[in-house]
Amino acid sequence: MTSTTYTSGVFALETMDVPGGTETVLRGGRHLFPLLPQAFAGVRRIGVLGWGPQGRAQALNLRDSLAGTGIRVAVGLRPGSRSAADARTHGFTEEDGTLGDWLAVAADSDLVVLLIADAALAAHHQEIFAVLKPGTAIGLSHGFLLGHLRETGGEFPAGHPVIAVCPKGMGDSVRRLYQQGADINGAGINGSFAVHADPDGRAVDLALGWSVALGSPYTFRTTLRSEYLSDIVGERAILLGAVHGIVETLYTRYRLAGDDEVTAYERSCENVTGPIARTISHSGLRAVRDGLSPSDRETFDRAYTATYGPAREIVAEIYDEVADGTELRSVILAERRLGARPMSEIGGSPMWGAGEKVRARRGERALPVEPFTAGVFVATMVAQIDEFAERGHPWSEIVNESVIEAVDSLLPYMHARDVAHMVDNCSRTARLGARRWGPRFQAAYDQIAYPAAELPADQSLVAAFVSHPAHEALAAAAKLRPSVDISVA
Amino acid sequence: MTSTTYTSGVFALETMDVPGGTETVLRGGRHLFPLLPQAFAGVRRIGVLGWGPQGRAQALNLRDSLAGTGIRVAVGLRPGSRSAADARTHGFTEEDGTLGDWLAVAADSDLVVLLIADAALAAHHQEIFAVLKPGTAIGLSHGFLLGHLRETGGEFPAGHPVIAVCPKGMGDSVRRLYQQGADINGAGINGSFAVHADPDGRAVDLALGWSVALGSPYTFRTTLRSEYLSDIVGERAILLGAVHGIVETLYTRYRLAGDDEVTAYERSCENVTGPIARTISHSGLRAVRDGLSPSDRETFDRAYTATYGPAREIVAEIYDEVADGTELRSVILAERRLGARPMSEIGGSPMWGAGEKVRARRGERALPVEPFTAGVFVATMVAQIDEFAERGHPWSEIVNESVIEAVDSLLPYMHARDVAHMVDNCSRTARLGARRWGPRFQAAYDQIAYPAAELPADQSLVAAFVSHPAHEALAAAAKLRPSVDISVA
Repeated sequence: MTSTTYTSGVFALETMDVPGGTETVLRGGRHLFPLLPQAFAGVRRIGVLGWGPQGRAQALNLRDSLAGTGIRVAVGLRPGSRSAADARTHGFTEEDGTLGDWLAVAADSDLVVLLIADAALAAHHQEIFAVLKPGTAIGLSHGFLLGHLRETGGEFPAGHPVIAVCPKGMGDSVRRLYQQGADINGAGINGSFAVHADPDGRAVDLALGWSVALGSPYTFRTTLRSEYLSDIVGERAILLGAVHGIVETLYTRYRLAGDDEVTAYERSCENVTGPIARTISHSGLRAVRDGLSPSDRETFDRAYTATYGPAREIVAEIYDEVADGTELRSVILAERRLGARPMSEIGGSPMWGAGEKVRARRGERALPVEPFTAGVFVATMVAQIDEFAERGHPWSEIVNESVIEAVDSLLPYMHARDVAHMVDNCSRTARLGARRWGPRFQAAYDQIAYPAAELPADQSLVAAFVSHPAHEALAAAAKLRPSVDISVA
Repeated sequence: MTSTTYTSGVFALETMDVPGGTETVLRGGRHLFPLLPQAFAGVRRIGVLGWGPQGRAQALNLRDSLAGTGIRVAVGLRPGSRSAADARTHGFTEEDGTLGDWLAVAADSDLVVLLIADAALAAHHQEIFAVLKPGTAIGLSHGFLLGHLRETGGEFPAGHPVIAVCPKGMGDSVRRLYQQGADINGAGINGSFAVHADPDGRAVDLALGWSVALGSPYTFRTTLRSEYLSDIVGERAILLGAVHGIVETLYTRYRLAGDDEVTAYERSCENVTGPIARTISHSGLRAVRDGLSPSDRETFDRAYTATYGPAREIVAEIYDEVADGTELRSVILAERRLGARPMSEIGGSPMWGAGEKVRARRGERALPVEPFTAGVFVATMVAQIDEFAERGHPWSEIVNESVIEAVDSLLPYMHARDVAHMVDNCSRTARLGARRWGPRFQAAYDQIAYPAAELPADQSLVAAFVSHPAHEALAAAAKLRPSVDISVA
């Protein structure tokens, strides 16, 4: 069981009630920025390696938060990186020493934040470790490297703090909500932190300071392994893979039932990314069902109870394979096989054409929650929650990876730009995972769940949903963040 | 590159022309049975362990072929096996020493044929090896154990010949075609053989004798590793997994185009297992396209060229993961996870209800080849052929694993009993593989191939199909077996 309690010499902590106990959380906010120099004691220079969505967002948020403290944030890029121009337009330049070669920046930093792509990290981490000054803290935002080291028998270098601060959302939303936070204090993307190595006792406060500086409304503790598993499994399940499978099957189902393309899209994809996501974000999971008429609720229940079992089977399978290292091996094989070839894109299937027409007519009417769609989606979400709970993840992590990250970060983006765009544009590892597992949900729902949804709902599963401990955990987490609809350009 | 030439001190061999060279083949037939005692020199007792479809078929064929030679065939079962009763009804009894405990039978045999399930083999191979007399030949019909030993660092015991004879078809068809062979000499299921260890020079003739005794129309050489890879990949691709994905997507496509359930089923599943399979079996792959009207041929070409690329990508991915051991790990994880729980069945999806109606009205009219369906199916088959060729498999193995096994063994069974029945009833390993990969074909075809099929056909891919070296290899293989439609009860 992951330890979820901790103490801080810098920040005032709170206790959050979760099923079965409590977890320590740090509530963030700009009023804490004056404490940052204390949290970052011993760190004069931060080197952010990478300028992808996370790299860019974190470098900008850190620089803004640490303005006036004398702590310098520099960006390190690999030689020939095409990101240099964009970094310069954001004020990171060679001239003032805030932009440079990644090894040079790493060698000059007291905290190195490794935000380069997984494949690059796997290939180059040894070189980066080799140039670090003694005692430099190694920062990660993702557990991939730990998984890779396990698979390859490698290690983090001794004597360095190894910490992770993992925003529970996409890079773009980490920056955008931080900027909205100038007006609404506490807006941001939640973060988890983990301490993998702490040779000098600084690690917890350093991690907390980093998380506060990123703008996290609340920060909870986990372990690098737990983060890794929940993150890699989550993106293959409810965060991306399953979502894609779900909307494809529902679209086809409604078309086969006689709907035209636009109606089918509204009842499937638009419904998930729109009213269903919004209801969960504002009012929690149970509200999706509570807000339905009695006859719609009966439809929800049938869809929910028919989907839960197949969903749970697949999430369990994904989890086993991620935990076992098997999934990671397939990612590495895929990278080798794909080489420079781009992955084929999924945005060409018929439903996405309908998406454009649907977006054009948004606002004409408020779309009601489609009960069958909601039952399928919520069942998948709860299946993931239950699998993570069974595997011993902290409740903060469970609700963030299974609910909050979806409804506050990913689904709003998909609402603006569609699911296919998301699948075709997220991280390499996530794309590969979504392509492997999305079809499993699609086939299982098509062939097993939807036929079973013709039968009356299983009342014991309905009861388990209604009384689920996750609602309590989700409500507690919701209290700790302002309800801010991310504004997506 | 696998060595495909060999010599025999017992049988007259032939040379078959294949793209890029020749392969040695042994043409089988009952007229060779008098040579069996010579081939089995040193073997007085054969122990067949296992009474699954392969165990039963091989024990019966061997006993029939060796009748009157004094070479005894006994069946060994694990304690408490529920197969004992069925074995007795087939004349294997404890009383005459032809039925017993598997370890006892193994200890008493000069050739042990290991036909128990993969999971049991993984768990018990050490015990079986431990009881063998010195010099007893170990016989396999499947490369799984080799893969397992590689993954776990195990070995075959030294001093024992290790041979494989692998019928390229399901157990039931191995027996049934053998029985039909009483009337039509040479009817049977082709086999490959491999020699993994040959301490005393007997191995090749022993393997050939075994293959002839099983009734193989022709026997070609491969390696255990090559057999394993082509077999495990094949069942995840054109032999089972892809077939399932293909018929599901095509059924849905025709339904969305306005077909009623029965018509959609006839244009998809029934077409693949019926006229398409029969045409390929009788006349080869090119004949499927040649037999179409010009406008249907244009439809075939569009479907073929749109499907080839996505199919090839997935087959390459499957191959990498089987070769790497990753797929085997997932099978082991799945067995652990499933335990005694049965796998959910796929036979409940809507299309299978239509299947019953379609079978009821068979014979009312001859179903023409559906051009779009044929293009998709043939493209998938050719994608597998090409991937195996690129990976260096012998051409005999390529055409058997990619074409002949499908059209002569598996698709006729699916025609009689439907694809879902097949998927829900084949070997554990095959079922798990079909469930993992069928959905990948389904999603890729749905989302990438079929949208692309709206575009004009890629003429270079069409030309590559028309001039494909596989047609020559398939024709050469066809000459070596009688064209016998397997009679399925």
